[in-house]
Amino acid sequence: MIVNDILAGHHARVLAHVEAVLPHADPARVHDPADDLGLMREAMIYAMQGGKGVRGALAFETARLLGVSGETALAVAAAAETFHAYSLVHDDLPAMDDDDLRRGRPTVHVKYGDALAILVGDALQALSFHFLASIDDPAVPPGNALVVLQRLAKVGGHLGMGGGQWMDLSAEGRPPVTVLAHVETVQRLKTGALIEWSATANALLSGAPPAPFETYAEAIGLAFQIQDDLLDVLGTEAEAGKAVGKDAGRGKATFVDLLGVEGARRRAQELVDEATGALEDFGQDAEILRELARFIVTRRS
Amino acid sequence: MIVNDILAGHHARVLAHVEAVLPHADPARVHDPADDLGLMREAMIYAMQGGKGVRGALAFETARLLGVSGETALAVAAAAETFHAYSLVHDDLPAMDDDDLRRGRPTVHVKYGDALAILVGDALQALSFHFLASIDDPAVPPGNALVVLQRLAKVGGHLGMGGGQWMDLSAEGRPPVTVLAHVETVQRLKTGALIEWSATANALLSGAPPAPFETYAEAIGLAFQIQDDLLDVLGTEAEAGKAVGKDAGRGKATFVDLLGVEGARRRAQELVDEATGALEDFGQDAEILRELARFIVTRRS
Repeated sequence: MIVNDILAGHHARVLAHVEAVLPHADPARVHDPADDLGLMREAMIYAMQGGKGVRGALAFETARLLGVSGETALAVAAAAETFHAYSLVHDDLPAMDDDDLRRGRPTVHVKYGDALAILVGDALQALSFHFLASIDDPAVPPGNALVVLQRLAKVGGHLGMGGGQWMDLSAEGRPPVTVLAHVETVQRLKTGALIEWSATANALLSGAPPAPFETYAEAIGLAFQIQDDLLDVLGTEAEAGKAVGKDAGRGKATFVDLLGVEGARRRAQELVDEATGALEDFGQDAEILRELARFIVTRRS
Repeated sequence: MIVNDILAGHHARVLAHVEAVLPHADPARVHDPADDLGLMREAMIYAMQGGKGVRGALAFETARLLGVSGETALAVAAAAETFHAYSLVHDDLPAMDDDDLRRGRPTVHVKYGDALAILVGDALQALSFHFLASIDDPAVPPGNALVVLQRLAKVGGHLGMGGGQWMDLSAEGRPPVTVLAHVETVQRLKTGALIEWSATANALLSGAPPAPFETYAEAIGLAFQIQDDLLDVLGTEAEAGKAVGKDAGRGKATFVDLLGVEGARRRAQELVDEATGALEDFGQDAEILRELARFIVTRRS
C-alpha cells in the first residue's frame, strides 16, 4: 500500500536524522571506560525504531503543503517522533502498562532494564525540545519557534499526554466510566494532543492559519484511538506487534464498549470524512494527508 | 544564617510561581470525575516543595547582577528548579536509587505511587521548557531564548544529567573506578551541568559574556558534589533529610574515597576560592553569590 511506503520513507529520514544528531560521547572529554553512555545512546535509537511514523509524516506532509523548508520539516518531524517514543518507553514500564512487546520487539525496559528505560525516555523528551530549539531558518521567526515549543511543552504537561495516561491508569479497578465525553477526554489528552501538535506546528512556524490542520488532526486523532480500540478487541498479537485484549482485562471503558463494534467503525469513518473535508482548499496537494486519514482506520497494527 | 534566608525567599517565589502557572483542569472541558488530574497537579507541587533552591537562587542573583528583568529571572529560576525536581523524582524511584526520604519527607513515589511519580517527573521536565518558551521580555531577543532552551535540552540529554545518573547506577557492583577524572565526569554530567546552566542562562539571554559565570558555576558544582560526598560519610540522616552512608554500601567511588576526608575538604575550599575569585569584577554586587559558594561547603544538608 502506497501510504505504508510513504510512511516508511519519512520514518527512515527521521531515524537517520536522530542518529546523526545524537552525539557520541567524546572519549577525550568524557571518561567512561565501560561506555555506559554509548549503551544509553544505543537504547535511545532502539526506542525510535520500528514505529509507523504517523506523527513525523504529518509534519512532513503539512510542511510540503505550506512550503516550509525541508530542514525545518525534519526538525518538527524528529521532535514529534522522539516525543512520541519517549511516551511509549515510559508507558510500557512495569509501573505503568507493563508491556513486554512493542512494534513486534521487546520493549526498551525488557531489553535494557527499567532504570535505563526511564532515563532513555527522559533524554528523548529533552531531545525533542532540542530539535525545535535548533531550528535555524530565515523563513521562521524565532518567536514562532518559541510558540511551537511552548505548545509541545503543554502537550507534555499534566493537562496533556501524561494526564491522559494517568486518568487511564487510575481507571483500573474502578467501575468503568460509561460517559463518551470521558473516554474522548482521555483519548484527546493521551493521543490527540501530540497528533494535533504534529499537524499544526508547521502552520504556526510559517505563520499560516492553523485552523484546517486543527480540524483535520482532531478528527484523525480520535479516529486513531477508535481504531486502536477495535484492534485491541479484534486484532491478533502477531498483526499488532504488541499485546491485545488488554483493555477488556483491565476493565477500561473503550469506544467499542460504548459504541459497539459497528458503531465504533461508523464513528471512525465519519471522522475520516471530516478530516479529509477539512483540507478541501488544498486540492490535490493534500491527497497524501487524506490517504493517511483513510489509512488510520484501515491499518491492522 | 543569612544565605539560608535568601535561599528560602527565592524558593518561596519559585513555588508561588509554579502554583500560579500550573493550570487546574477546566471541569467544563475536561471530564475527570475522580479528579485524577487534580491529584497529579498536587503531586507536581509536592515534588517542588522543601528544596534549598540553590539553582533558582543562582538564576535570581545572576539576573540581579546583569540587570535582567524580574519576570525573566523568575522564568529561569522556575525552569531550573522544575528541571531539578524532575530529576530527583525519577532518581528516587525504586528502579533507580530507591530512596524513600527526600528533603525530610516521603519521596514522591512513596507518597503517590511509582506510576504517578514517573508521570510527574515527565510533566515537570515539560514544564521547565514551558517557562523558558514563555519568556516575553523586550530586552531578550527570542533567538537568545532559543539558545538557552537548547542548552537546557542538552543538560537533559544522554551526555548530561541522565547520562551521569546512568554512569553512576551502572558502576554499582563493578570494581570502583579509582580515577579522579572519572568521578569528576560523573559529577559534572549529573550535577554540574544544571548548576552551570542556572548560573549562565541570564548572561546568554541578555547577551552578556557568560565566561565568569561558567568558571564560578563549574567550581561550585564540583564543590557541591564533594560536600555531598562528605555529608554522606559524616552526616546524619536527621540533618541531611535523606538516607546517608549509601554510597559506601554500594561500592561507588566518591571524592572522599579518592582524596580522603581532609583532602576532599581542602579541594572543596580551593574550588570555593576559585568561584569567589571569578566574580571579582562585579565587586560588592556579587557578594551574595560569593556567600552562596561558601554556604555550599558549610551546609549540613
